[in-house]
Amino acid sequence: MITAVLGAGAWGTTFSQILADSGCLVRLWGRDEAVAEQITTMHRNDKYLPGIRLANGITGTTNAREALAGAQIVVVAIPSQSARTVLEPFAPYLADDAVAVSLMKGVELGTDKRMSVVIAEALGLPMERIAVVSGPNLAGEIAAHQPTATVVSSIDERTASLVAEACSCDYFRPYTNPDVVGVELCGAVKNVIALAVGIAQGQGMGYNTTATVITRGLVEITRLGLALGAHAETFAGLAGMGDLVATCASPSSRNHTLGRHIGQGKTLDQAIAATRGTAEAVKSSRSVLALAQSVGVEMPITEAVVSVLHEGQPVTEMAHRLLSRPRKTEGL
Amino acid sequence: MITAVLGAGAWGTTFSQILADSGCLVRLWGRDEAVAEQITTMHRNDKYLPGIRLANGITGTTNAREALAGAQIVVVAIPSQSARTVLEPFAPYLADDAVAVSLMKGVELGTDKRMSVVIAEALGLPMERIAVVSGPNLAGEIAAHQPTATVVSSIDERTASLVAEACSCDYFRPYTNPDVVGVELCGAVKNVIALAVGIAQGQGMGYNTTATVITRGLVEITRLGLALGAHAETFAGLAGMGDLVATCASPSSRNHTLGRHIGQGKTLDQAIAATRGTAEAVKSSRSVLALAQSVGVEMPITEAVVSVLHEGQPVTEMAHRLLSRPRKTEGL
Repeated sequence: MITAVLGAGAWGTTFSQILADSGCLVRLWGRDEAVAEQITTMHRNDKYLPGIRLANGITGTTNAREALAGAQIVVVAIPSQSARTVLEPFAPYLADDAVAVSLMKGVELGTDKRMSVVIAEALGLPMERIAVVSGPNLAGEIAAHQPTATVVSSIDERTASLVAEACSCDYFRPYTNPDVVGVELCGAVKNVIALAVGIAQGQGMGYNTTATVITRGLVEITRLGLALGAHAETFAGLAGMGDLVATCASPSSRNHTLGRHIGQGKTLDQAIAATRGTAEAVKSSRSVLALAQSVGVEMPITEAVVSVLHEGQPVTEMAHRLLSRPRKTEGL
Repeated sequence: MITAVLGAGAWGTTFSQILADSGCLVRLWGRDEAVAEQITTMHRNDKYLPGIRLANGITGTTNAREALAGAQIVVVAIPSQSARTVLEPFAPYLADDAVAVSLMKGVELGTDKRMSVVIAEALGLPMERIAVVSGPNLAGEIAAHQPTATVVSSIDERTASLVAEACSCDYFRPYTNPDVVGVELCGAVKNVIALAVGIAQGQGMGYNTTATVITRGLVEITRLGLALGAHAETFAGLAGMGDLVATCASPSSRNHTLGRHIGQGKTLDQAIAATRGTAEAVKSSRSVLALAQSVGVEMPITEAVVSVLHEGQPVTEMAHRLLSRPRKTEGL
């Protein structure tokens, strides 16, 4: 099968590798001529995935028409906030039967739209021809062929199966799931919980506290998801619990790292300065809380994160505030 | 409230501390005169919880009648396999309205009974007067007052509330849950998954693989639970996911440690020798698989653990075998 991957960063390049190892031909599109040329001629992407030998079935290109010609699957792995603008020029070159796949997390600022919706609008595709891939998928470990699993989600079961078939190899196992809203919500909200876990660890807390924040964090994400029409099982699955557990364990998560700095007593500005790159949850914690309040859902951990980051509550009071809530039953 | 804790090991002593910090008087019963005396006179238990100053409200005793006199809550924290024999002599001294609480994990060998049932039979109590406490509760961290949460489960909501009230303090937050079968199943089966996670990590796998094994492991535990009448939410809660995440992160889990040795290529005998104490999952993995087969539930990770531990399958083939199963939808 011919496939295109738009975005030659670490995840886009790694996913190209998965597709090639699953038997696909891959056109890997990026803006950078030097990167595209190195991919084609040297089978490497030193800028974004150093040390990895790429499969022969991957060719680099900077040309939209060339990337999409005959591609039955078009995978999108570009920064969420520029996705719409970058994708629109691709629309005329889409093959007739093409489906598009989102590897992106978060929501579009301004519109609050999920990334699958942004892709559908930018490329002029119906939602039946969109899929989302999400799971415990740290790119570097997959590039090293460490086994992992993922979720391929689409409202159309044929689209999900087509994509799952194309990215199924001996170190990558996709499970299909029709709950696109749930899968994308997990990806958008998990960073707030990862930040809360970072805060606890920054305060010197160990495995119990971490596991409690992860578990109760997932309960509140699930509660929000149910209010928005998602399925509870999705949150207990690879895109929910799986991604959250991997993110909270990995030292490379910026949200987790920023949380640690906050937990150690830094101000938000100091913590942002100490964290390389953007910790998405600094902004998204507020949007998530606003969304929860608009549908009448309680999210005490998210609320505590917002209080500490944006309302001047001392981080030392966070645990006490969470633990002193009225006693209740477990569950949703 | 007057409470008794039977068993002065690390968890029994730590739980006594929780009860005392929640305002209860605690009689902590143990077999060892010196330990009991040190608890009463020195407010320490150097043998099982070194370095921790115990609350004044805790007194040690080796006398069953003295321990139970007027105690409204009797907490049992003795080794699972000797529970029945040790408990039976206590039955005559139980206060009329006493409820009993299990802090124990696993099932009784020979009878395959859950620990709450063993307690009920040994003390002659109806199940309405039994509760179970389980969650991400590594004793050392709680003794250091790191915040955590737990599940208090009983088929009788009044029993659950009474116990939750008695063990609710500023570092320990109980949630009630009526699903006793689910809570106890989590505790009995999680060690098999912790062992599988250890195997993956012993083979050098990172966060993705760990998160995948935890997530898919919990899915198969949940599937077994549903077949046995438990509720799915329990497995996504503190006694399921919470305890599993804490156990798989902690280096002190023997099942996890034994798995690492196996993953590094040791034989089962070598791995057992290298792991101090008993790794319960070596035996229980077989019972769990037999139980699953008897109710027609697929548990591929448990099956792989049994194959590697007991059927001579090379550990290097485990990942391949799990990943090459037919593609399927996520969920239960």
